[in-house]
Amino acid sequence: MRSIRLRVRALDLEAERTVVLINEADAEALGYSPGDRVRIASSSGAIVSMASITKRLVSRGELGSCREITDALGLSQGEEVEVSLAPRPKGVEAIRKKVEGKQLSPDEIGDIVRDIVSGSLSPEEISALVVAEHVRGMTMDEIVAMVRHMVETGDRLELGVEPIFDIHSIGGVPGNKYALVTVPIVASAGLVVPKTSSRAITSAAGTADVMEVLANVSFSLEEMRAIVRKVGAVLAWGGSVRLAPADDILIRVERILGLDPRCQLLASVMSKKLAVGADHILIDIPTGPGAKVERMEEARALARDFIQLSHRLDVRLEAAITYGGQPVGYAVGPALEAREAMETLMGNGPGSLIEKASSLAGIMLELGGVARLGYGREAALEMLRSGKAYQKMREIIEAQGGNPDVKPEEIPVGDKMEVIPAPSSGYIAQVSNRIINEIARAAGAPSDKGAGLRILVKEGRKVEKGEPLMEIYAEHENKLDQAISIARQRPPIRIEGMLLEKLSGEPRFR
Amino acid sequence: MRSIRLRVRALDLEAERTVVLINEADAEALGYSPGDRVRIASSSGAIVSMASITKRLVSRGELGSCREITDALGLSQGEEVEVSLAPRPKGVEAIRKKVEGKQLSPDEIGDIVRDIVSGSLSPEEISALVVAEHVRGMTMDEIVAMVRHMVETGDRLELGVEPIFDIHSIGGVPGNKYALVTVPIVASAGLVVPKTSSRAITSAAGTADVMEVLANVSFSLEEMRAIVRKVGAVLAWGGSVRLAPADDILIRVERILGLDPRCQLLASVMSKKLAVGADHILIDIPTGPGAKVERMEEARALARDFIQLSHRLDVRLEAAITYGGQPVGYAVGPALEAREAMETLMGNGPGSLIEKASSLAGIMLELGGVARLGYGREAALEMLRSGKAYQKMREIIEAQGGNPDVKPEEIPVGDKMEVIPAPSSGYIAQVSNRIINEIARAAGAPSDKGAGLRILVKEGRKVEKGEPLMEIYAEHENKLDQAISIARQRPPIRIEGMLLEKLSGEPRFR
Repeated sequence: MRSIRLRVRALDLEAERTVVLINEADAEALGYSPGDRVRIASSSGAIVSMASITKRLVSRGELGSCREITDALGLSQGEEVEVSLAPRPKGVEAIRKKVEGKQLSPDEIGDIVRDIVSGSLSPEEISALVVAEHVRGMTMDEIVAMVRHMVETGDRLELGVEPIFDIHSIGGVPGNKYALVTVPIVASAGLVVPKTSSRAITSAAGTADVMEVLANVSFSLEEMRAIVRKVGAVLAWGGSVRLAPADDILIRVERILGLDPRCQLLASVMSKKLAVGADHILIDIPTGPGAKVERMEEARALARDFIQLSHRLDVRLEAAITYGGQPVGYAVGPALEAREAMETLMGNGPGSLIEKASSLAGIMLELGGVARLGYGREAALEMLRSGKAYQKMREIIEAQGGNPDVKPEEIPVGDKMEVIPAPSSGYIAQVSNRIINEIARAAGAPSDKGAGLRILVKEGRKVEKGEPLMEIYAEHENKLDQAISIARQRPPIRIEGMLLEKLSGEPRFR
Repeated sequence: MRSIRLRVRALDLEAERTVVLINEADAEALGYSPGDRVRIASSSGAIVSMASITKRLVSRGELGSCREITDALGLSQGEEVEVSLAPRPKGVEAIRKKVEGKQLSPDEIGDIVRDIVSGSLSPEEISALVVAEHVRGMTMDEIVAMVRHMVETGDRLELGVEPIFDIHSIGGVPGNKYALVTVPIVASAGLVVPKTSSRAITSAAGTADVMEVLANVSFSLEEMRAIVRKVGAVLAWGGSVRLAPADDILIRVERILGLDPRCQLLASVMSKKLAVGADHILIDIPTGPGAKVERMEEARALARDFIQLSHRLDVRLEAAITYGGQPVGYAVGPALEAREAMETLMGNGPGSLIEKASSLAGIMLELGGVARLGYGREAALEMLRSGKAYQKMREIIEAQGGNPDVKPEEIPVGDKMEVIPAPSSGYIAQVSNRIINEIARAAGAPSDKGAGLRILVKEGRKVEKGEPLMEIYAEHENKLDQAISIARQRPPIRIEGMLLEKLSGEPRFR
């Protein structure tokens, strides 16, 4: 193997992956070709890194070293190191095989996952994997191996108790704050629920964004463990811990490409659940126009895949297909949703949210043997009515460093508000998930916690012209204006007369 | 569209693509999600750029700006600019369509190619395109559009004469210095041959590397034009000019992924040829074990595709399938190959090189109407024998700033040399392209111009134990040792007795 000696030039740079900069001329001397990795050996050790080739950023004879590498090898400015080509990581060959449409062995999947987590793969290689998974798919064997390796290459919560319960919603419905109601219900019945969730990426509020209005959500694994041991549950942001970290890297590339391979969705969800030790899992699949899953057959197929996967992973899993054709509850946006969730726990919530949260909690109570089959929902509603779920939520909020005495109406929302009136009389024919989401985001959600909207009417209701349809809240005047302008140009709530269509009796062709 | 105001922090960074650095908190405020582009507006104008999100590299409120963007907008340190999300380039949607296996319109292909050349696509997106082309393929309509847009988005040679001849070898065979013989033959017959070629990437010497031993190969378009007008030909490095630049970007990603989509190969070759204005093209497809194309059917299919494409692009094209199962000539490595090419032009070359160079030149002479059909090879050999081709090569070398009087034996080769003897007596059964290539690269080729090897025997010849099989040349002792060690561990030249296998007459099962 050819090698050259280069002088270290420590760069004030932190890269996502370990990467060094090498001058074009030195790269040629090394026999470097695009995608090659280099091995950097100093007196104190050696490390393998991706290399970026540059014409001018570093001179011939220099090795531009980002901070991770400088620190890992304890390099000093001007120190001489030996640089040679390193073999490509094994995962590269396995990705190529998947591109060719071949089935991968568990070991090959392991190579890929380890290389993803160690930062050994280039953006191009990870992208090739995502495209190949999308086009070629994966067998159940491959998905099982993917889950196992994704869990193994990360940290684990390890609570030391069992059973452990968890719930995950596939998402795509605005106002989906159900977890802030379902988790306290389930925990108040004595089940252990260490729930991690994500922040909104394309939606107006993720569960973590809503919970953050009420308490902290960023914890170390140790802190999370302590909270769950104390109050039986946590509502934490998954991004603060290294649970199945391959997932986060893959999801980033999926978003860039606008692809969401079904097989990777299955592996992602299950790996996150297994990493917290969950062995009793409920999957919520919101289904309807504008949701992530639009058609019932599609929802059923996904549910079947989840169940099959759970058998292979030896965990209990149920899947619930819920109505996702319009927002859950009335509020959309972190603070407005936090208000609505607290109101619901305090006995004054909207029907659709109570219905969804208690149905899901009911399935979990039955799964946990706390309620008899068929009586779960009733038991869940009882926890809600009795105030036990609210009491549990107070404990969770307090354990997470929030104020348990917070009143819903005291939660601050944006002080700029506009009411959108009905442009005509008629019946509410449709509430569009997509446009509702866009308006809430334009108003500032999720980063402006107080921004969002409240829908005042739901599908099927009769309204009179001029009657308020929704309120938009914002923290900044210009964002309110942007949100109003979307609401005017593309009304998210469609009103129609009862007569939807008139068919002419006249024959079209004489 | 949301926008935020950031202070410019000019970074001493040159990126491959235009890219700005934004703090995580600001990205969240913008509603940024991975793959989004941002629009940066200053008092002097606006520009769209990819964004890299960072936790610490720039602080909240700062915009880290690479030199390209700082210069393009004339930004000064600390200046306030307005940053907002920009729509994704059109090419992204077209790539997604190809991933889904749909056929693209010429306009969609145009979107992709323009976005590649302007640097608007992320590495992930370009990778998705390459994988999609590999898995889904492209129709002839798509390839035609790809070629046209690749040519349009780059510079052109525009010699102002016609016809223009060109030749391209698909490659993969060590020692393939044929172009240094074929081009002077063809040019000496009065045809115009502006040949651009690549440097070696995975091989021991590209045409440009070999020619560089004799003369300069890096020219501006204007210089190339002047050389061709003066002597009728050029042997230049394609990397110094912007001919079909999308090709170079795509090839980089193909190498990272180890993929070589057939449709993109066709588009790449034709776009480079059309960019120099060639309308009479010869494609050489070396075929045999260890070559890029291994089987005859595959070679024929590729030839047919090239011919079909040429009809669509309205240029004349012939394809030649040549034997590529073992090295062409005896020399491998820049200086050794330059010696062999000059010896051949001076009337003292190896049979396989004379045969290949004159056959290909003959086809071009027939294409150009300089020789009657069936008499091209004879005419080519006559140009060689008469010294006219050598005289033309001297003119080319001089026009390219080299020494036309150079003697082959004066061309410096590595002064470290080792002879590899035959380990046994027998017949040469196989000369392995792949291992020959590896040995020459280990010896230092192509960056050490004098490094490489000379094969002394070819397939079918009888050798005695101890008889020299090859000579390895290197400029550095340690590289010579590495090359020798490969040659010992994995002999590139296989010797066998005439009796290849003995089948026992005894029945296996009684």
